[in-house]
Amino acid sequence: MRLLSYELNGESAVGAVVDDGVVNITQRLGAGYGSLREILVADRINAVHAEIRGTSPDHPLSEVRYLPTVPDPEKIICIGVNYVNRNAEYKDDSDLPKYPSVFMRTRESLVGHNEPLVRPPESNQLDYEGEIAIVIGREGRRIPEHQASTYIAGLSLLNEGSVRDWLRHAKFNVTQGKNFEKSGSLGPWMVTADEFSDYTNLSIATHVNGERRQFDTTANLLFPFNYLISYLSTFMRLKPGDIISTGTPNGAGARFDPPKYLKPGDVVEINSPTIGLLSNSIVDEQI
Amino acid sequence: MRLLSYELNGESAVGAVVDDGVVNITQRLGAGYGSLREILVADRINAVHAEIRGTSPDHPLSEVRYLPTVPDPEKIICIGVNYVNRNAEYKDDSDLPKYPSVFMRTRESLVGHNEPLVRPPESNQLDYEGEIAIVIGREGRRIPEHQASTYIAGLSLLNEGSVRDWLRHAKFNVTQGKNFEKSGSLGPWMVTADEFSDYTNLSIATHVNGERRQFDTTANLLFPFNYLISYLSTFMRLKPGDIISTGTPNGAGARFDPPKYLKPGDVVEINSPTIGLLSNSIVDEQI
Repeated sequence: MRLLSYELNGESAVGAVVDDGVVNITQRLGAGYGSLREILVADRINAVHAEIRGTSPDHPLSEVRYLPTVPDPEKIICIGVNYVNRNAEYKDDSDLPKYPSVFMRTRESLVGHNEPLVRPPESNQLDYEGEIAIVIGREGRRIPEHQASTYIAGLSLLNEGSVRDWLRHAKFNVTQGKNFEKSGSLGPWMVTADEFSDYTNLSIATHVNGERRQFDTTANLLFPFNYLISYLSTFMRLKPGDIISTGTPNGAGARFDPPKYLKPGDVVEINSPTIGLLSNSIVDEQI
Repeated sequence: MRLLSYELNGESAVGAVVDDGVVNITQRLGAGYGSLREILVADRINAVHAEIRGTSPDHPLSEVRYLPTVPDPEKIICIGVNYVNRNAEYKDDSDLPKYPSVFMRTRESLVGHNEPLVRPPESNQLDYEGEIAIVIGREGRRIPEHQASTYIAGLSLLNEGSVRDWLRHAKFNVTQGKNFEKSGSLGPWMVTADEFSDYTNLSIATHVNGERRQFDTTANLLFPFNYLISYLSTFMRLKPGDIISTGTPNGAGARFDPPKYLKPGDVVEINSPTIGLLSNSIVDEQI
């Protein structure tokens, strides 16, 4: 099942994709379920499955405005260097890291599918990073690896857009360059966990204007999904609707010589066959 | 005016401190104002002022359980090395930083005044960091420094508790060691902006079991409050209820030789005369 957050005629709702249309789930479950996070908190995914059985769409998919898959997560946790090749790409002769690199993004840093990413006037180094994002389905601390998959509500795609020259403003943090408003995206929807047999061989590709820039599979992750959930929950309480973005393959724009940063008119497409396609064009910010 | 978030008989509310008691503001303004963040979003601080004029407290202050000043902020933004002496304390011969160090904490990492800080079984290096925290009062992007103070709703105190050996799990981020659940605190309340003539000479002290460990004043900040608001809002949209913790003076436990980490039974008190006193004891986590 594919669940999305969307806006239509000024109202936001959760929807399920059926054929080429959207079934309005919020209307069916009630106003307390205006956000996918609320549906997950209340553990109503089974109710959503039941609602859409034999139901016809309320709107064509082409008419809705996509919001980030979860528009109001409490946390958006991002994992740095995680694909094996990525560590080599840094060319700093460092050993493989012992633990994942972890930072956070704000919800305002992300837009939905088909919404433009915004290049700010402060930089011409806006860059893409295609990633698979885990949506957490239930609350937990110190989750053992062998139970971790039961905490996954589903998967989405995340463009972990980065403003490169603001990444190293400080010694120990990348917060600034990872949090420009509307510099990344999350979408197009969440594919529920029941559609995956496991998470160990999902491919992800990023294309810019049709040119393939990134490709890898989760078979090459230094820190697989189960490890990430277990590790993060050692210190943090994971909660329904939380997002864990699992790291990007090599081939971001900054890695080319000369770098291939994003410019207005470019289109970035991130896709993973079992999840979908997340597409965003680039615009210059108008101030 | 001092505004706090509290719990009494299982109900949470926003309160105003009057004499030695608490006036229940949520009861007076309505259920839509159950959180200080909601009061700030709705720009109702003046209404709160009006409500408490000539009013007697509903409960003695001693009876309420303190929640974090803002229990549900969208962002908790923390500033690293910011007091001039702090940079010298690192003894790495680095020049003064050009930009602030910025990272984020989750809401679950903070408890309220008088609640215990929790030392996790994964570490015996729980440490204090006394800080003054800005509570943002209105939304803004690219706020000029000369207007920044008008975005401050008030000030609170924050113990930016850190688990030292988890701070450097990764190369470029301190997220892990800054986000253990209940490792820090925010309180006891917010003193509203009208009680400050400016923010350029506020003192802050941290005592552990009565011994003074940290003391400095905001006159020594590398990046004063107005700069921080302007800088952060260059990339992030600041929103009502957001917290900016402005950095800690030297003298954290890790800086002593041997280090003086926190242990069960210790009491950490952070105080700033115009703001108040934030006190927390330490307990070992029971799993």
